[in-house]
Amino acid sequence: MRVGIVGGTGDIGEGLAMRLSSRHDVVIGSRDEARAVTSSQCCLTTLRQRGLPCSCEGTTNQQAVDRSDIVILAVPFSHVAGTVSGLRGFSGKIVVSPVNPIEKRDYFMYVPPPEGSAALMIRKLLPPDARLCTAFNTVAANKWRALDQELHLAVPVCGDDREAKATVMELVNSIEGIRAYDAGPLAASCMVESLTPLLLNIARFNRMRDVGIEFR
Amino acid sequence: MRVGIVGGTGDIGEGLAMRLSSRHDVVIGSRDEARAVTSSQCCLTTLRQRGLPCSCEGTTNQQAVDRSDIVILAVPFSHVAGTVSGLRGFSGKIVVSPVNPIEKRDYFMYVPPPEGSAALMIRKLLPPDARLCTAFNTVAANKWRALDQELHLAVPVCGDDREAKATVMELVNSIEGIRAYDAGPLAASCMVESLTPLLLNIARFNRMRDVGIEFR
Repeated sequence: MRVGIVGGTGDIGEGLAMRLSSRHDVVIGSRDEARAVTSSQCCLTTLRQRGLPCSCEGTTNQQAVDRSDIVILAVPFSHVAGTVSGLRGFSGKIVVSPVNPIEKRDYFMYVPPPEGSAALMIRKLLPPDARLCTAFNTVAANKWRALDQELHLAVPVCGDDREAKATVMELVNSIEGIRAYDAGPLAASCMVESLTPLLLNIARFNRMRDVGIEFR
Repeated sequence: MRVGIVGGTGDIGEGLAMRLSSRHDVVIGSRDEARAVTSSQCCLTTLRQRGLPCSCEGTTNQQAVDRSDIVILAVPFSHVAGTVSGLRGFSGKIVVSPVNPIEKRDYFMYVPPPEGSAALMIRKLLPPDARLCTAFNTVAANKWRALDQELHLAVPVCGDDREAKATVMELVNSIEGIRAYDAGPLAASCMVESLTPLLLNIARFNRMRDVGIEFR
């Protein structure tokens, strides 16, 4: 699978690129192409040092969309509407939202947009035939990047297109130690997105780091 | 600790009584006192068959409040406002809400009241000096009741009264295999409550049963 990461030089994007590029062809996108190139070189170096294969290139966000079968929107909630509106070519593609609308107060709070979730807001910005799924919301950036750390984490996946959801779950399951769970239709994404501020609260109030979940 | 369970003959209440009455004095309350008595006898029999101690009595919901230090509101969301409004004596007590406002569509959906969560709605119905916490939301009724099943589950606890929260976390941790996590202030309860419909969706769409969570 050719996986494009819009916002691929950010915290989550960078870690995702490292985890995915040993098994898939990854296209790291950025507003700043030079940063994406640096990021892809860093990814290559890191994986080769570990004796792992790596297929990864850095380019613009638009190229990351154009050259990929699956596009991950690794963009903070505050920028996602602007970013998606500025890009073309989503038609027919599988698009993945790992986006969580969170406010930081004395604690972390889930504050969804009027549509009910980031996913439902993003759906309105995409062409009707884009195949949007929610995934990768709940894994902390540091866990993605800590390649030497063994993961045992669950990733809930939502979506309305059965085939697209199966492909995204396959992508999730291709990462060692991560297990995909079908969490229902796209309208159920709010319950997946609100897990992330809960996990941030659990970390904060129990002096833990990079908390993830398992279902059992 | 003397623990009262309002709605103690329901699914969650019955299981909670079984798990708690080997370590605490449990007062099972019900609108129907006779049912509460039957339930407490069942609890005694079940625990004694396993060679466990059991302190458990059945009575009215009002007596369950009056005779207890901690009151658990084991009532479905649709009945909790009516039930709480019909009871007195919460003043100064620790009150625990395991209540989740859920709608069943083709999937399970978190549908909080205008206050933002069941917990915040319940707080408005209680006297200002009642010490409300959120806890026990995410454990499936069948898991509570399956006494022979070893649990490995996380229970997030929210609350604004530090001492009350510590007491509730102690109560949670007194159940073998259950671990309490501080999930922040009462205003963060929505993220705990919305975990339950997510777990129901995970169970439904992945052919699992009685799904719980662990943090790691």
